[in-house]
Amino acid sequence: MDTLATWHQILEQRDPARLGEILAEDCVFLSPVVHTPQEGRELTTFYLTGAMHVFNDSFHYVKEVVSGDHAVLEFVCDMDGIVVNGVDILTFDASGKITEFKVMVRPLKAVNLLHARMKAMLEQLAS
Amino acid sequence: MDTLATWHQILEQRDPARLGEILAEDCVFLSPVVHTPQEGRELTTFYLTGAMHVFNDSFHYVKEVVSGDHAVLEFVCDMDGIVVNGVDILTFDASGKITEFKVMVRPLKAVNLLHARMKAMLEQLAS
Repeated sequence: MDTLATWHQILEQRDPARLGEILAEDCVFLSPVVHTPQEGRELTTFYLTGAMHVFNDSFHYVKEVVSGDHAVLEFVCDMDGIVVNGVDILTFDASGKITEFKVMVRPLKAVNLLHARMKAMLEQLAS
Repeated sequence: MDTLATWHQILEQRDPARLGEILAEDCVFLSPVVHTPQEGRELTTFYLTGAMHVFNDSFHYVKEVVSGDHAVLEFVCDMDGIVVNGVDILTFDASGKITEFKVMVRPLKAVNLLHARMKAMLEQLAS
């Protein structure tokens, strides 16, 4: 399975409904803000859907470092004049599905902005 | 040149004096906290020296994703009960020297703790 190609398609088409194709059932999401892992495909889908709504069209990847069971995708996104620079760190199982989706962001201003935006978006999605 | 092997030696021996062996003259340091790049081997050495003083012996790498001109080293460090989880994202020139050293950290608590500790350490080193 070409998980990364599918992931890029999902992002381009803003189609979170297809996340089930690439996330393992026991996938864990690790946010840039909170320490506690969010466990399971459902919660991971919830967070990634939120992120797809929060990031605008300026979001694009600038590096893709892949080796073995891991891929690191570095992105940049301009949010109201603040440059959000981050990485998606993916871990794959033997079948190529994503078992861990970890996000880190810099600089501090961007972490704080993303924190506020994601909180509002997740509350909206959950209501 | 095996830059990564030298980097691991420098860290193990806490020997920032050897950073000149692996940093390109025009190396740029990008901090997890501040947007503005810190330009040049001297400033990069200053920041990495500060980091080596701030991180304790619990610092260790948990992933090494290397491909082409890039290496992503994921680390974990326990600082006073707060788990600092981060990545060093390195870019190499044709001779294998590091031209960009970028750091990102999660979660937010860890970014704030590192911010405070690095600020105090860099002021001490500069005085």
